[in-house]
Amino acid sequence: MTDSNRVWHLKSRPNGLPAADNFEMKALPAPALEEGWIRVENKFLSVDPYMRGRMNDVKSYVPPFEIGAPLEGGAVGKVVESRSPHFREGETVFHMMGWREAAAGPAEKFNKVPPMPVEDHQWLGNLGLTGATAYFGLLRVAQAKEGDIVFVSAAAGAVGSAVVQIAKAKGMTVIGAAGGAEKVAWVRELGADAAIDYKAEPIVPALMREAPNGIDVYFDNVGGDHLDAAFAAARQKARFAICGMIEGYNGAPPPAFRYIMRVIAARIRVQGFIYTDYLPEMGDFYRDMGGWVASGQVKSRETVRDGIEAMPEAFLDLFRGANMGKMLVRV
Amino acid sequence: MTDSNRVWHLKSRPNGLPAADNFEMKALPAPALEEGWIRVENKFLSVDPYMRGRMNDVKSYVPPFEIGAPLEGGAVGKVVESRSPHFREGETVFHMMGWREAAAGPAEKFNKVPPMPVEDHQWLGNLGLTGATAYFGLLRVAQAKEGDIVFVSAAAGAVGSAVVQIAKAKGMTVIGAAGGAEKVAWVRELGADAAIDYKAEPIVPALMREAPNGIDVYFDNVGGDHLDAAFAAARQKARFAICGMIEGYNGAPPPAFRYIMRVIAARIRVQGFIYTDYLPEMGDFYRDMGGWVASGQVKSRETVRDGIEAMPEAFLDLFRGANMGKMLVRV
Repeated sequence: MTDSNRVWHLKSRPNGLPAADNFEMKALPAPALEEGWIRVENKFLSVDPYMRGRMNDVKSYVPPFEIGAPLEGGAVGKVVESRSPHFREGETVFHMMGWREAAAGPAEKFNKVPPMPVEDHQWLGNLGLTGATAYFGLLRVAQAKEGDIVFVSAAAGAVGSAVVQIAKAKGMTVIGAAGGAEKVAWVRELGADAAIDYKAEPIVPALMREAPNGIDVYFDNVGGDHLDAAFAAARQKARFAICGMIEGYNGAPPPAFRYIMRVIAARIRVQGFIYTDYLPEMGDFYRDMGGWVASGQVKSRETVRDGIEAMPEAFLDLFRGANMGKMLVRV
Repeated sequence: MTDSNRVWHLKSRPNGLPAADNFEMKALPAPALEEGWIRVENKFLSVDPYMRGRMNDVKSYVPPFEIGAPLEGGAVGKVVESRSPHFREGETVFHMMGWREAAAGPAEKFNKVPPMPVEDHQWLGNLGLTGATAYFGLLRVAQAKEGDIVFVSAAAGAVGSAVVQIAKAKGMTVIGAAGGAEKVAWVRELGADAAIDYKAEPIVPALMREAPNGIDVYFDNVGGDHLDAAFAAARQKARFAICGMIEGYNGAPPPAFRYIMRVIAARIRVQGFIYTDYLPEMGDFYRDMGGWVASGQVKSRETVRDGIEAMPEAFLDLFRGANMGKMLVRV
């Protein structure tokens, strides 16, 4: 345990694509523990596209980050000091005080990991925010079921790769889109029935070719032309789960939709969601996903950067498509 | 009853906005009645935007019109000859053999009007396709309920004017958009709490002003910038019923959406529909809407053109926004 704690702060709000100088690392003294608090040494920090939204000064589903204040995000670590009867030294916890080396606070801000034989970082990936987003988005929001034809964008990303594998575990046909030959090859390895390289060809005709009978479900991580392709290919009563629109996070021009009118004739249902809407059902998620991860039926891949210093660049790399699977920083 | 029957045919497929020379009227001999058939003299022909879609050679929820073949559409008329035990001369029926002076065919292609004290043309409007579209779209698809704030586009049109009045009958707050001072005044007369003239000011800031607390429901007849405004103003768990996108029917450039990303944070549900999905529930519709129409709580206004010759121009006028309420041709 260190006496000081390096913490990334928001120095200025990005205008469009974020840049390194929007972030500032400061060493803060480690606070004394109050009664009921614990101190955690972070092992892994989560790096997620949704964090971009909180850097704007707009009300959304979570409050915006404040300029000059510490950034937040998922993290997993070990308890190193406890003044709470609920935690013991050495226990593994996950929590939202990421972007820093160590976290201290009231016990209720930390969650013990469930007793499962998986590696620590999984609590930020397939057994954390991204896995739960994939699970609830596919099975609850889109109500995908055995036999459905599922299209998923950013299929080599943390959420998308989980969607591909959950869909296969549940007996669906899966078409994934990703950018570049290496990602596409990995999407196939994950079990996708077809994979489209959207950097090599336009997405609309590619999807029409790979899904000649149309799609029942679209899991959207991207928005823009991928969403338009899904409109074009949707079968009757298709369901779209809208989880992210990374194309639009950094002030790109507003996307145009050539096929949106198909919403009517095909009775498409488009539904936005945040995985926290399903927190009461986390038991189902841990049971299913925990089993698949422990058995190896759902695999993960991580893009890991080392050291707290690497955090902003890891974040910027998300928008350059530099990650395969889950982006993490190992502290 | 005439010996010949003038029938509008599709002469060529429109490319973009339809024009008069896409249509051709031919006088066909009145067919002999087969056993089980009836003959109907049409009184009113329905003129609807959705007909434009059937003029394209693409598969949709109804098959396309064939070049050189008679056009079809809603119509109401009187039985003038019957070889069916189910119909008597003089009965009023509605059916889909519009665009013509008289219709003949097997009895199962015709529907007797329910026994209600309303004028004949209502079976093509508030008690027909447009009223049912408004009723099921608002109450079933969008699940609008008392206390909701409802935004409706094309609020002076046949469907939109019914939406405004049903919403008020059910205790909702209603904001309608229409083009031009006369239409806006009528939307207010119908009971809307606020009305926006989209020709006088941009729709997004106007809606933000009229709905400072946001909207729970959007009933879309228009698509494009009206839909984008609804994305901008949507409250948590807003429901959008997508009924028509008249802006896009004639090959306009694909609409761009600046606020579509709000689908995620606001958990918006967007659902396309066709009123025929709710045919098994027509009993509810006749009970509620029949009562409102008979009592005068739901009013209608018609833009009526006279004579079978007027049919194509009436249709083209829909896309010029020339109609107030339901567009009809009186044969």
